[in-house]
Amino acid sequence: MRCEVVAIGTELLLGQIVDTNSSWIGEQLALTGIDSHFQVKVGDNLERMEFCLRQALERSDAVICCGGLGPTQDDITRDAIAKVMGADLQRDEVIVEKIRRMFESRGRTMTDNNRKQADIPVGGRPIPQMPGTAPGLYCPIGGKVIYAVPGVPYEMREMMQEFILPNLQERSGQKAVIRSRVLKTWGNTESGLAEILAEEINVLDEKGNPTLAFLASGIEGLKVRITAKAEQENEAEKILADEEEKIRNILGDVIFGIDEQTMESVILDKLRQDESSLCVAESLTGGVMASRLTAIDPKMETFKGGVISQTPFEEERGINRAIYAAKDAKKTTGADVSVAATLPHPSEEKSKGTVYLAIVIGDQEHTDEVALPGDRQRLRNYAVISLMNYCRKLLA
Amino acid sequence: MRCEVVAIGTELLLGQIVDTNSSWIGEQLALTGIDSHFQVKVGDNLERMEFCLRQALERSDAVICCGGLGPTQDDITRDAIAKVMGADLQRDEVIVEKIRRMFESRGRTMTDNNRKQADIPVGGRPIPQMPGTAPGLYCPIGGKVIYAVPGVPYEMREMMQEFILPNLQERSGQKAVIRSRVLKTWGNTESGLAEILAEEINVLDEKGNPTLAFLASGIEGLKVRITAKAEQENEAEKILADEEEKIRNILGDVIFGIDEQTMESVILDKLRQDESSLCVAESLTGGVMASRLTAIDPKMETFKGGVISQTPFEEERGINRAIYAAKDAKKTTGADVSVAATLPHPSEEKSKGTVYLAIVIGDQEHTDEVALPGDRQRLRNYAVISLMNYCRKLLA
Repeated sequence: MRCEVVAIGTELLLGQIVDTNSSWIGEQLALTGIDSHFQVKVGDNLERMEFCLRQALERSDAVICCGGLGPTQDDITRDAIAKVMGADLQRDEVIVEKIRRMFESRGRTMTDNNRKQADIPVGGRPIPQMPGTAPGLYCPIGGKVIYAVPGVPYEMREMMQEFILPNLQERSGQKAVIRSRVLKTWGNTESGLAEILAEEINVLDEKGNPTLAFLASGIEGLKVRITAKAEQENEAEKILADEEEKIRNILGDVIFGIDEQTMESVILDKLRQDESSLCVAESLTGGVMASRLTAIDPKMETFKGGVISQTPFEEERGINRAIYAAKDAKKTTGADVSVAATLPHPSEEKSKGTVYLAIVIGDQEHTDEVALPGDRQRLRNYAVISLMNYCRKLLA
Repeated sequence: MRCEVVAIGTELLLGQIVDTNSSWIGEQLALTGIDSHFQVKVGDNLERMEFCLRQALERSDAVICCGGLGPTQDDITRDAIAKVMGADLQRDEVIVEKIRRMFESRGRTMTDNNRKQADIPVGGRPIPQMPGTAPGLYCPIGGKVIYAVPGVPYEMREMMQEFILPNLQERSGQKAVIRSRVLKTWGNTESGLAEILAEEINVLDEKGNPTLAFLASGIEGLKVRITAKAEQENEAEKILADEEEKIRNILGDVIFGIDEQTMESVILDKLRQDESSLCVAESLTGGVMASRLTAIDPKMETFKGGVISQTPFEEERGINRAIYAAKDAKKTTGADVSVAATLPHPSEEKSKGTVYLAIVIGDQEHTDEVALPGDRQRLRNYAVISLMNYCRKLLA
């Protein structure tokens, strides 16, 4: 099974928007075991879009087309797909009504433009999931298929996860229900994980169901995807749950979360559960931790903020630098848990990449000294994820 | 003149790396007035790379090929280009020597693998700029050309700016020296700028040299590129300088910087010059300002950090919230200048998107109330750039 991604939008070619959607889709396809050999970006031009879609369809079994489903004149993905199908567009009144109600619920009136979004190529149908006002499209062509999803990331993701990925798996010859779960790990290499899981992988290879796939996500760790098939959804879910338990038993707390969880969401969820709160002392990390935490807790209900500074621990040496910083932020914010990462003082004879971590929980001080790779920018990002992972483990 | 971008690397298809290089190259091409209709990502597979290069060369006049110039087995861009050219690879001993010296200067020994990087398709030549160990390639084919640049961003950028963009401009029929400068603006729309500059654009249209191009960069503002041609470099630079002055006279302080400058680099440069220092009070902005500032001032020499909190100004209402926050951070850090952006208190009857800005410089308080668009995440980013722009103007 091969699937290509065609990203649509002149703004992508002009570099006004970085095409993160294709990267995300590429990752999902890889985790689902679907080959993807090409990704193309093309502008809002009917002829060139048609060319790209035809070519993608020729060399692959499926095409995911992202963007160009909006209500403006530039949004011509529907037209391009209809041309490739040799079909007309037909307005779907059920979708018109759905869009109308969506506008109404936001206290706005649907314009005539928006009706256009309900145009579906004859022979295709809308994707059932529709989190925004743009319906996705499912358009079979011969034995192949074009899917179209909006460029709005959360809309695209919901359609991918709920409809397109399962549909692709079913199309790849499997009548069964297919479900998967991603276990996110941090702190081990791909070869390391493969070694630890070698025995289980052998067992699964023989059984054939469920299957495991690994995917590196750079500084954010490694993902292990479990894919299960069964005749019924509840059976598939049972297989996933059983396998997750087995893998958790083998890998232990290297696993920090599943599916859409992130290191910071796991920490904040745990703290919320415990009716506890967090603050940060940022020197080396320079605001990166806070910006990640406030992105998911913008009202700062569990994350209480912190201090960005190089100076309060200036006089300290060694791990005391991080402890001092963490305590200082804790005192300033009144939070229950405080985390800090600092570099050694320049006078300390420490090897390059040495970072002190300190986490204060109530009256308890926890410290670690780690050696991290990379230039300043990478070191900073490694420090953030190392410190958050340390915090996660202590809270567990 | 049409130019396509082919990004090479299986890691791009798998979503392990987001392809920001193509976006950047796309923007540079647009600013240089070169059309780019397609961008393709392809994995490290000789046959598929060859296919993509041939196709790109067929529909465009030039192809920029990014990535796959490293020393490992995966790095086969050289081979793919040689195949397209129908040429052999020949080792360039001058380049081997250059690479050897580069390793030596870093106290390392060149491995045999690295020699491979000096293989050049016969008929092509290395790009003169070589900031890393991977030489770029300039490979004319008939009347067309393939350029190859490494995937390492700073290496790619230097080759693009110093060699490829001028070379493309010369190939587009111009024998002259071509130089350009980007003026970065913030606070006006594309149509607004075009209107203000209408008269000057008319004058330039008639003269034909220099030329102006506009490019939107989303939340970071709008860029105006001046491109000048002349027989000699110093003439071209003179034309650029004269035109920059004219446009600065027309646009005034909407222009915040040129070329590689950013809003935050301009602020920090100015403060450094004044031997002054900066701190931030982040509530709405949640650490984003600090992370941008520490990215370019990691040792926090001019940027002194700040406070991330929702609480110190809890009791305040209206613009006092931002003033209180800014003063609080100033007191905590001892910096000369403090900036803050806050939301109104929930009890205030303010329209959605209202943001209070306060900047304290010494004893002087400066405040503004702005209405910003978007959901929480966008509002936050708009608040960051609005506040930084306000700060820049006050410091000027």
